[in-house]
Amino acid sequence: MSKIKQISHVAVVVNDMDKSLLFWRDALGLEMTELRDVPAEKSTIAFLPAGQAEVELVRPTSDDSGIAKYLAKRGPGMHHICLEVDDIEDMLVRLKGKGVRLINEETRIAANGKKYAFVHPESTGGVLVELYQA
Amino acid sequence: MSKIKQISHVAVVVNDMDKSLLFWRDALGLEMTELRDVPAEKSTIAFLPAGQAEVELVRPTSDDSGIAKYLAKRGPGMHHICLEVDDIEDMLVRLKGKGVRLINEETRIAANGKKYAFVHPESTGGVLVELYQA
Repeated sequence: MSKIKQISHVAVVVNDMDKSLLFWRDALGLEMTELRDVPAEKSTIAFLPAGQAEVELVRPTSDDSGIAKYLAKRGPGMHHICLEVDDIEDMLVRLKGKGVRLINEETRIAANGKKYAFVHPESTGGVLVELYQA
Repeated sequence: MSKIKQISHVAVVVNDMDKSLLFWRDALGLEMTELRDVPAEKSTIAFLPAGQAEVELVRPTSDDSGIAKYLAKRGPGMHHICLEVDDIEDMLVRLKGKGVRLINEETRIAANGKKYAFVHPESTGGVLVELYQA
């Protein structure tokens, strides 16, 4: 049976990357391992590991992406939590069997080749949850 | 110099604990190690470890707490992220020196005797951040 292994990352949507880094990197002292433009997500993403997990700061680079619309509607803040699962296909079958509403009914492939899928906040208590298989 | 060790927990504010547990515990398969009434926070909290970190589901038990007001205003969803720090006093001094706005200028003592303090979302890019020393 598939199992959640850990929190992979917490994604924070920001409107000012430099200002956000003043807190997360410079004040808090987290190491920023990468600041990467991700065209597929129309975003620039800063990766800051904290133990096993990461904080990801996401700044939209276009106005028409889902994350840009989220930012416009809700303001900056936590966007989603990503959980690492050991067998994502099995997990999606189980979630569907339990009546959980999925945003991605089938797994998608990230730029790094890994599988992921999003669960709808309606089924989680208001949290956008990403499942990810490392 | 004080250092962030890991993500300690992600707190999710919910309005229906039973329904939320249908997802986080029963569908996702996380183990719920404890479901505890926390009078000091006017909440019932479910603790679900995921690797080093935990998901905490928080249901307000009173209408006049900060978290109840947050729920009424923003709806259910992610409430705050808690980061474990090895020396919280040193960290607070550093944050103040960097001009970071703190909700708790001095550390507070949790029911379990551990020290914590909250950082204001204004300084973090919209995220309520808790610092915690284990």
